[in-house]
Amino acid sequence: MLLENLAFPEVEAYLKEKNVILIPVGSVEQHSPYGLIGTDFIAAECIARETGKRMGIMVAPTLAYGISPHHMAFSGSATLMPETLILVVGDIVKSFLSHGFRRIFFINGHGGNVNSIETGLQRLKADNYPGIFGMISWYDYPEMVDIGRELFDGKEGSHATPSEVAVTRCLRPKEFGTKATIELEIEKPEHHWPLSAEEMRQFFPDGRMGSAPWLATESKGKMVIERSVDALEKKLRKIIAMPLADSSKVQK
Amino acid sequence: MLLENLAFPEVEAYLKEKNVILIPVGSVEQHSPYGLIGTDFIAAECIARETGKRMGIMVAPTLAYGISPHHMAFSGSATLMPETLILVVGDIVKSFLSHGFRRIFFINGHGGNVNSIETGLQRLKADNYPGIFGMISWYDYPEMVDIGRELFDGKEGSHATPSEVAVTRCLRPKEFGTKATIELEIEKPEHHWPLSAEEMRQFFPDGRMGSAPWLATESKGKMVIERSVDALEKKLRKIIAMPLADSSKVQK
Amino acid sequence: MLLENLAFPEVEAYLKEKNVILIPVGSVEQHSPYGLIGTDFIAAECIARETGKRMGIMVAPTLAYGISPHHMAFSGSATLMPETLILVVGDIVKSFLSHGFRRIFFINGHGGNVNSIETGLQRLKADNYPGIFGMISWYDYPEMVDIGRELFDGKEGSHATPSEVAVTRCLRPKEFGTKATIELEIEKPEHHWPLSAEEMRQFFPDGRMGSAPWLATESKGKMVIERSVDALEKKLRKIIAMPLADSSKVQK
Amino acid sequence: MLLENLAFPEVEAYLKEKNVILIPVGSVEQHSPYGLIGTDFIAAECIARETGKRMGIMVAPTLAYGISPHHMAFSGSATLMPETLILVVGDIVKSFLSHGFRRIFFINGHGGNVNSIETGLQRLKADNYPGIFGMISWYDYPEMVDIGRELFDGKEGSHATPSEVAVTRCLRPKEFGTKATIELEIEKPEHHWPLSAEEMRQFFPDGRMGSAPWLATESKGKMVIERSVDALEKKLRKIIAMPLADSSKVQK
Amino acid sequence: MLLENLAFPEVEAYLKEKNVILIPVGSVEQHSPYGLIGTDFIAAECIARETGKRMGIMVAPTLAYGISPHHMAFSGSATLMPETLILVVGDIVKSFLSHGFRRIFFINGHGGNVNSIETGLQRLKADNYPGIFGMISWYDYPEMVDIGRELFDGKEGSHATPSEVAVTRCLRPKEFGTKATIELEIEKPEHHWPLSAEEMRQFFPDGRMGSAPWLATESKGKMVIERSVDALEKKLRKIIAMPLADSSKVQK
Amino acid sequence: MLLENLAFPEVEAYLKEKNVILIPVGSVEQHSPYGLIGTDFIAAECIARETGKRMGIMVAPTLAYGISPHHMAFSGSATLMPETLILVVGDIVKSFLSHGFRRIFFINGHGGNVNSIETGLQRLKADNYPGIFGMISWYDYPEMVDIGRELFDGKEGSHATPSEVAVTRCLRPKEFGTKATIELEIEKPEHHWPLSAEEMRQFFPDGRMGSAPWLATESKGKMVIERSVDALEKKLRKIIAMPLADSSKVQK
Repeated sequence: MLLENLAFPEVEAYLKEKNVILIPVGSVEQHSPYGLIGTDFIAAECIARETGKRMGIMVAPTLAYGISPHHMAFSGSATLMPETLILVVGDIVKSFLSHGFRRIFFINGHGGNVNSIETGLQRLKADNYPGIFGMISWYDYPEMVDIGRELFDGKEGSHATPSEVAVTRCLRPKEFGTKATIELEIEKPEHHWPLSAEEMRQFFPDGRMGSAPWLATESKGKMVIERSVDALEKKLRKIIAMPLADSSKVQK
Repeated sequence: MLLENLAFPEVEAYLKEKNVILIPVGSVEQHSPYGLIGTDFIAAECIARETGKRMGIMVAPTLAYGISPHHMAFSGSATLMPETLILVVGDIVKSFLSHGFRRIFFINGHGGNVNSIETGLQRLKADNYPGIFGMISWYDYPEMVDIGRELFDGKEGSHATPSEVAVTRCLRPKEFGTKATIELEIEKPEHHWPLSAEEMRQFFPDGRMGSAPWLATESKGKMVIERSVDALEKKLRKIIAMPLADSSKVQK
Repeated sequence: MLLENLAFPEVEAYLKEKNVILIPVGSVEQHSPYGLIGTDFIAAECIARETGKRMGIMVAPTLAYGISPHHMAFSGSATLMPETLILVVGDIVKSFLSHGFRRIFFINGHGGNVNSIETGLQRLKADNYPGIFGMISWYDYPEMVDIGRELFDGKEGSHATPSEVAVTRCLRPKEFGTKATIELEIEKPEHHWPLSAEEMRQFFPDGRMGSAPWLATESKGKMVIERSVDALEKKLRKIIAMPLADSSKVQK
Repeated sequence: MLLENLAFPEVEAYLKEKNVILIPVGSVEQHSPYGLIGTDFIAAECIARETGKRMGIMVAPTLAYGISPHHMAFSGSATLMPETLILVVGDIVKSFLSHGFRRIFFINGHGGNVNSIETGLQRLKADNYPGIFGMISWYDYPEMVDIGRELFDGKEGSHATPSEVAVTRCLRPKEFGTKATIELEIEKPEHHWPLSAEEMRQFFPDGRMGSAPWLATESKGKMVIERSVDALEKKLRKIIAMPLADSSKVQK
Repeated sequence: MLLENLAFPEVEAYLKEKNVILIPVGSVEQHSPYGLIGTDFIAAECIARETGKRMGIMVAPTLAYGISPHHMAFSGSATLMPETLILVVGDIVKSFLSHGFRRIFFINGHGGNVNSIETGLQRLKADNYPGIFGMISWYDYPEMVDIGRELFDGKEGSHATPSEVAVTRCLRPKEFGTKATIELEIEKPEHHWPLSAEEMRQFFPDGRMGSAPWLATESKGKMVIERSVDALEKKLRKIIAMPLADSSKVQK
Repeated sequence: MLLENLAFPEVEAYLKEKNVILIPVGSVEQHSPYGLIGTDFIAAECIARETGKRMGIMVAPTLAYGISPHHMAFSGSATLMPETLILVVGDIVKSFLSHGFRRIFFINGHGGNVNSIETGLQRLKADNYPGIFGMISWYDYPEMVDIGRELFDGKEGSHATPSEVAVTRCLRPKEFGTKATIELEIEKPEHHWPLSAEEMRQFFPDGRMGSAPWLATESKGKMVIERSVDALEKKLRKIIAMPLADSSKVQK
């Protein structure tokens, strides 16, 4: 049920039954010498598509690029500016609304995107666009809180985490032959967010933030994916069950 | 230590000792028939100034207007668009940076502002501006979590809360003679954020969101202020003690 | 009749009788070693509120920050960029229009704001927003022309003027204990407006522009306020009496 | 000395001697049934070029389109939005600055442009661009104040004025064969600026604003041009004689 | 039939018969030591006006300034930024649409403008503005392809071409007394478009791009104009004959 | 050699050898009942990656969404606005430039993107960014001109072409089981570009533009891909061999 593989009459048919669509969004940014530059969008895409398959809901093409200015001192990272992503979010939601979608969710794989996506959604509501718009980060449900402790010995950290590295390792195992494997000290320098690119590299010289990505394995990745899909399905079912506002009742 | 009451040589003198400045930011939006339209900026200003006085740090003039599109179906509310507040935040931080301030904190009184202010700060870091930039909502420290239960019988809700109404009642008691006092049912309709103005009024017809503002009293307001100032001071002292990044050490 | 102290049903009630609102706007900029950084918004706020009280019309929260790029070489000044203030003006006027306000006036305390505010108002009319929108600078009525000669020996100048310093001295006398008092030469170097921050500091090294702020006294400040409120009331009564355009009569 | 007729080595040669350039700017808007839609740019171009010829200073190509939203209910009017003209002004001034021009003047023919052009110039100074930037409206010198009384019986009004119609009549006499000639009542309805397109047409149904354009003659047009060129020359000579700021002296 | 010479009732009368308007657009940029800085707008204006005269269709005032960042290392060039021209195009098309024009054509004289003008037109269609919007470069019809070979010995090149220099030489012969005449080598360095200003000057040090502008003569200019007007007329007649879309038939 | 599968030290290593990167860009838009909504980005991604593999050059993550406002009357299409894509292009090129890439090519699969991408690249050169920036549409080389005639009986058309449908059919054969197969009349209604969404659907009711997508087969798709990769390789080798400008030689 990927939008990209349909023809327009198939979308018309879907819209007679449902009005939900998921849009995976990630980033193109370094994930330390242990992880892939595409980690965030690869993970978000996988979890959105897996959930879409289970629930019979449509998944739109992935937004690979996100907000990563703080990673720009590491080669290969690419960033949109916040004002750009705000526009992208607005353009895409307005596009899907015009066809009749009314429950539109960005399935997010990168913390740096949160403010911009939510600002974009808030902006649409300021123009009174109808429907339920949401952003859900796949790693950020209550059900995911304990995963670092359970699977990774409390060494989850906050960037290049063993969870996300495990997910991509499970999905693209062959790519990890050339990646770092050595175990290092885990440092947690005091710092205040947001950081500039220069500050990020100074505080976190190898791109990890308090994490132990060497603990990531394919099998743990499979467990992370499953747990996240379960949690996302549960969360989506709850939101999708909410009624849409009925503008005829507005009392002004 | 209000910036507005100084002359420029006094600011120069301050900057020889310190580089911290607090900027209160609120909103101009309905707070139900029980509360003041200025609630958010009045509270943020009070708590920022009280904290500034205790800590001997400078407080800039207040930004009264914030992001309130969802309140626009209630008379008297005024909203900036997110792109506007993002620019305002950028202009003001760049202004203070140019004089040598390096620890710049928005003391926020309104949840709707969070994404825009944080996007504004993230944007500055994308241009590599140096220093520590933060946004702290006065009601959102760990220390404040239990206040609803302790003081307001668990009926804090999320808009026109008894906490914020109590703060303003403590500060401007005379203004409450004309406000509602009747006790109502507390409803918590299911809804998904963000809401448009029309949706907000439909779900929350009198502008409260699950709150019991009639429980607000002057004396409880005094307690809320004190607890918040304590918590803000503690939080600021911790952040101010963090070292600034040393750009000469960046390894790229 | 301050908007910030009302609840939304009180605004609804007001709008059944009247459709006027005043919005004070100032700046956060140096006013020489003799005057307060907040001079412009403190004065505009006072005069708007005093006039609102006399006339029974509503006054919105103050916009403290304005367009002050030319003062940025003096510590403590903060400036919005013109495009930012244009957006702020548009957002706020559109907000008040949506509730039914139709006579909306910015009461201005800073010459640098004039072009941006008027551009913002012109922009709204380009989108055919209905109503009377105005910007009135409190020091710029015919009635105020002679005040420099009468009260300040012709040494009014054009920045850090004795008039505005007297107004703030009257309002916040305690803040002047730490300000300069020495009498200086009054220089009027030839210059062409607009100036950059660097040029401003070069031409006017202590931030005054041809003025004698040491002549400001509390009692003269009281006289300036009274005269300005008289003049503003007269001007507003005249404009408010003008009929609104009747769009049903447009002949296109 | 029109820039458009030079090759780049000729501009290089000019810049070894002088750094002044004039840029005519007008509007494309109705001027009642008595006047030309191009009135404002035709007049500004003539007066700028005449002055340039006399003073041996360069004149850039004319900006025909300006800010005319209030005239859009009259066929043939075309308007830029203020944000567009602000960008145009910035782009052009930055272009000429890059070659070494340092005294750059917009010679303006339309009141509606004033705020946007001045905002554009103020914006450049906020970025510390060096040089003297000015906007001079050809009809707005002290020397021009009495011309309405002297030549047109006090019936100058404020749009489609006999002065500007006379200027274009002098320059393009053949175009006036098809224009209105009848004498009408001069009405001066009370109104508050700015007006929307609809309001403008309602208050001023034939596009004149308090003026008697039927009084315009070729010979009076010649007198208006001469007087304006005299005044502009005088004003420019004064400004051009002002020294440029010396950034090495800035004291911050 | 120049819009600038009409009064609004004459435009109303025209619109009862026709809905076509031509808008000449050029650039202000160096054309080597052999050609005029105004070449592009002078040529576009001439060909648009000549075609308008023949076909009885209206011609709007000329947009002299275009997109010339790559010429900025040559004195006298002035450039708009692409975002500026996109806005200008949008503002002007929307203006003419509001009066009832429905076939609106930019007659273009500069290759650098093409992307921005077409982006501006595409943007209008994204907002569903009705009508036929086009951009036609006067030198870019099939009929013009062979002109370089026929008239200029295959030495047309791509900037400061003998065609465009001939057109301006025909129109403003007196301006060529001070221009270069010497015959040079024609070099065609490999390069990839777009170039920056610095790269342009490095690759093409005298501002020509593979052209022999010394071959331009007045009589050849006359031939170029005639051929281009013929071709433009033919092209316009074909487009003008196309029916406008009938929005009542849209099937969605 | 996909960027998304590398860690940052691998990118650093690549940059010691090469400075080329390819960025596939497509659209999310209807391709008639015969083709996939993802056609444009699926094809561009395939051809870019295939070419990158052959040449040993890096390929960045795909930009799936493009400029498709004219397809918005067909369900499932999603469009960016031109100003959004211009920003996206700028952000991504600046990101890769910051790491040392100097030959950056968008491999494009959608005609509607051309103006916006080229405007974005032109804008970067206006700010003097160094390097060679290009946009190459995979279907638009001289070598591809005859493919419609050779493989598809001259029925290539201009949207939902048998070429692009064949490419995706070759890549994702299983998705075509649910697509249309019936042979229709090929109509070529006269129309003028650009079209609005409503106009597009009126002129081309089933979303094809003069094409016969039923002629697409997997084996022909393979041939199209091979020919396009050959041509793209040839074109890229030629451009990559061009020297970069040497800014030290600029003569201004």
